[in-house]
Amino acid sequence: MYIDHPASFTDYYELTMAQGYYLSGMHQKNAGFDYFFRKVPFDGGYVIFAGLKELIETIKHFKFSEEEIEYLERENFSGEFIEYLKNFEFKGNIYSVKEGEIVFPNEPIARVEGNLLETQLIETLLLNILNFQSLIATKACRIKFAAGENSTVLDFGLRRAQGLAGIHATRAAMIGGFDGTSNVYSAQRFNIPAGGTMAHSWIQAFDTEIDAFRTYCKHFPDSTHLLVDTYDTLGSGLPNAIKIAQELRDNGHELLGIRLDSGDLAYFSKQARNMLDNAGFENVKIAASNQLDERVIASLRSQDAPIDIFGVGTRLVTGDKTPALDGVYKLSSVADEPTLKVSENIEKITLPGKKKIYRYLNEDGTFWGDAILLNSENILERMHHPTFPAKKSNLNNRKYEDLLDPVIKNGEVVSEMPPVEKIVEYKKKRFALLNPEYKRFDNPHIYKVGISTRLMETRDNLLNLLKQ
Amino acid sequence: MYIDHPASFTDYYELTMAQGYYLSGMHQKNAGFDYFFRKVPFDGGYVIFAGLKELIETIKHFKFSEEEIEYLERENFSGEFIEYLKNFEFKGNIYSVKEGEIVFPNEPIARVEGNLLETQLIETLLLNILNFQSLIATKACRIKFAAGENSTVLDFGLRRAQGLAGIHATRAAMIGGFDGTSNVYSAQRFNIPAGGTMAHSWIQAFDTEIDAFRTYCKHFPDSTHLLVDTYDTLGSGLPNAIKIAQELRDNGHELLGIRLDSGDLAYFSKQARNMLDNAGFENVKIAASNQLDERVIASLRSQDAPIDIFGVGTRLVTGDKTPALDGVYKLSSVADEPTLKVSENIEKITLPGKKKIYRYLNEDGTFWGDAILLNSENILERMHHPTFPAKKSNLNNRKYEDLLDPVIKNGEVVSEMPPVEKIVEYKKKRFALLNPEYKRFDNPHIYKVGISTRLMETRDNLLNLLKQ
Repeated sequence: MYIDHPASFTDYYELTMAQGYYLSGMHQKNAGFDYFFRKVPFDGGYVIFAGLKELIETIKHFKFSEEEIEYLERENFSGEFIEYLKNFEFKGNIYSVKEGEIVFPNEPIARVEGNLLETQLIETLLLNILNFQSLIATKACRIKFAAGENSTVLDFGLRRAQGLAGIHATRAAMIGGFDGTSNVYSAQRFNIPAGGTMAHSWIQAFDTEIDAFRTYCKHFPDSTHLLVDTYDTLGSGLPNAIKIAQELRDNGHELLGIRLDSGDLAYFSKQARNMLDNAGFENVKIAASNQLDERVIASLRSQDAPIDIFGVGTRLVTGDKTPALDGVYKLSSVADEPTLKVSENIEKITLPGKKKIYRYLNEDGTFWGDAILLNSENILERMHHPTFPAKKSNLNNRKYEDLLDPVIKNGEVVSEMPPVEKIVEYKKKRFALLNPEYKRFDNPHIYKVGISTRLMETRDNLLNLLKQ
Repeated sequence: MYIDHPASFTDYYELTMAQGYYLSGMHQKNAGFDYFFRKVPFDGGYVIFAGLKELIETIKHFKFSEEEIEYLERENFSGEFIEYLKNFEFKGNIYSVKEGEIVFPNEPIARVEGNLLETQLIETLLLNILNFQSLIATKACRIKFAAGENSTVLDFGLRRAQGLAGIHATRAAMIGGFDGTSNVYSAQRFNIPAGGTMAHSWIQAFDTEIDAFRTYCKHFPDSTHLLVDTYDTLGSGLPNAIKIAQELRDNGHELLGIRLDSGDLAYFSKQARNMLDNAGFENVKIAASNQLDERVIASLRSQDAPIDIFGVGTRLVTGDKTPALDGVYKLSSVADEPTLKVSENIEKITLPGKKKIYRYLNEDGTFWGDAILLNSENILERMHHPTFPAKKSNLNNRKYEDLLDPVIKNGEVVSEMPPVEKIVEYKKKRFALLNPEYKRFDNPHIYKVGISTRLMETRDNLLNLLKQ
């Protein structure tokens, strides 16, 4: 379970609003909410959607336990409302894109329908789960993209993760394209390959570096990466590692790799590769760590640094540079009538009505662009730029996919939630259909997301009829 | 409990090293580790230490459960080692500064002693807990400092928190100086004041804005903040809020406040204050939210924006701009002999030996500077700059405090862990003793942290005798 008490993992105002709806007899009104984000993190071109499984499981177990009830009593919530909450269950519908899908700004990635009270109550939970895992899956995808398909990228982030965020950061990193983790907790729970060998403290605990290497290899003769920078990388670490590699080979084993954790990784990896190759250890891998991210790795790649394995910590698990996805959850219909919020910032005006997403494809099957349309629409002839409607695109005869699937219907889970390894596969397949211009780090091409003519008219009519 | 399975909330290499120590018969050797950080986050001048209570409680309950044991078996750890782990408990000592203390780079904020195996095994857990809470307490302190003592700052971050990090972000925010939270889960667990009233969805759910306001106030006549920017802040939100404030007053109640969540907060807060005051509602508070942090708030303050309450979300709970404190845990003694790590970066050379921190005071009791000294030392005559020893300061007759207290002795908790409200008090008292030049946001003065002559000599001798 994501959290032991999901009903209290919420903002206080969800509860006061719920009480307000209940006491005014409005709580049974139909409502629809959209989950979407406005800005791609890391100045990138795409987001990898993640976290759906945790969300669905948590909503399935969403209820007010005794502790929550007592708290609400202490906080002077209404007795009648508290009685209602004692039997509360989410009985609405949730439609969502699949975990691992490539998604873009303003699209309703998930749509929640039900009564006003239940759809409001799950807001904070939904945002908390989906925002974070999508952020980290996206960061991980960028890092793996920089490292290249033939490299191995490992999550080393637990010690610098934002506390318990480390648990799901690791899950999301795998969805984004990582190959394994140092995080034992998440490895156990999500069936992820885990590994790791030694820290500097291991080396320091021995009288000499070579003793430290030799002792470790005695106990792990077939799975060792020797950490070579504790005292002097080229002067002692590597020469000692090569001696040990020879001792292992003499006894029928092979050293797996060495790890660099400081200094100029481009320079040291080249020196290390030469020294290892010259000693006949072409198969010993070179791992590197120390404040890596997609840009540092891209730079190392551009310098032809012969690094096989990247251990990435802090900047992966915290989503460094953009530590939050700005996902929001906005009311789009009440009593089956479309509604919108205006606000004082144009970019915060929302799209009204029950909506879906069509993804249009190029001839070769790659993604061309997405249209947001009303749920009641089917075939689109064209779509418009969301804020500059004169800019429009013809969609005639273009193939498309409908991205939203039902995952909860009337409170029942109706879609199988695949394990991480299946999500990883799906993400990989989908990412291959995203053209390279959207993947680059500097000024990525902006993926087309348009709105249907009817959706545009619905919005503009509502703006003209503002209820004040 | 911080985490249900603390023994697996770790990096894999802690376990392989533990097995290596055990199988080589080295695990009973004495060892000492230091927890410290190298760089103040947010380009600031200080860090607020937080997270100690969770760390201590978790170490108290640290054991290998059946699930961990099965995992280690599947991963082919040694049977003998696994047997040992079945009865493993941490029996070492931990010394630490108090939660809420003001701390600086390179100081051993916490010192862990015990055998090699037990001191190694808790590394990841310790770093995970202390790094994150100290980060957020520091961010919170900066935000409160910008807002001013007479303002109210509230944590609105749960929806954008890094998943489960939201739980302890709220605790740490309180330690740093926040006044309350929207996060119900943490409010319950840490006894923190929680609150909140309405989102835009509440307004949208009604036919008119004034209906929405009126209905809410009917149910919460004494505790309402009206959100005024859903349609048109000055054209409808505020005039409607004033009408409702009058209706409330006519019925013997008072509107508590209004909230601005978009647009230019300096402009709108001034307009709002004028409109409210002119209508006779001088006591109605103005709350503001929307991508706030210490710099935005300082800018609002410099423009005399009449904002009473700041709701801060994303940028508080993620530690935006520096989403991780770079705290590390380094071996400083083995078998009671000092040890150090060199690495390829000078700034990563560690300080050897069992150490403590003296905080020296000015005549008026404010903090003058800190010295790191060997545990065996008492009176210091001078301290040296850590990397430029010719720069030194006389300490003669200066008053000082010894900052490290025992919190665990031989595995037993020996120090009472105060509740959040007591930590808040302590932090406030200590922060008042930090002079203003360390608190400013741009180029804060660098607080003096020196090392004793003997510690310097110990380090330099070890560097000369490098064991390779």
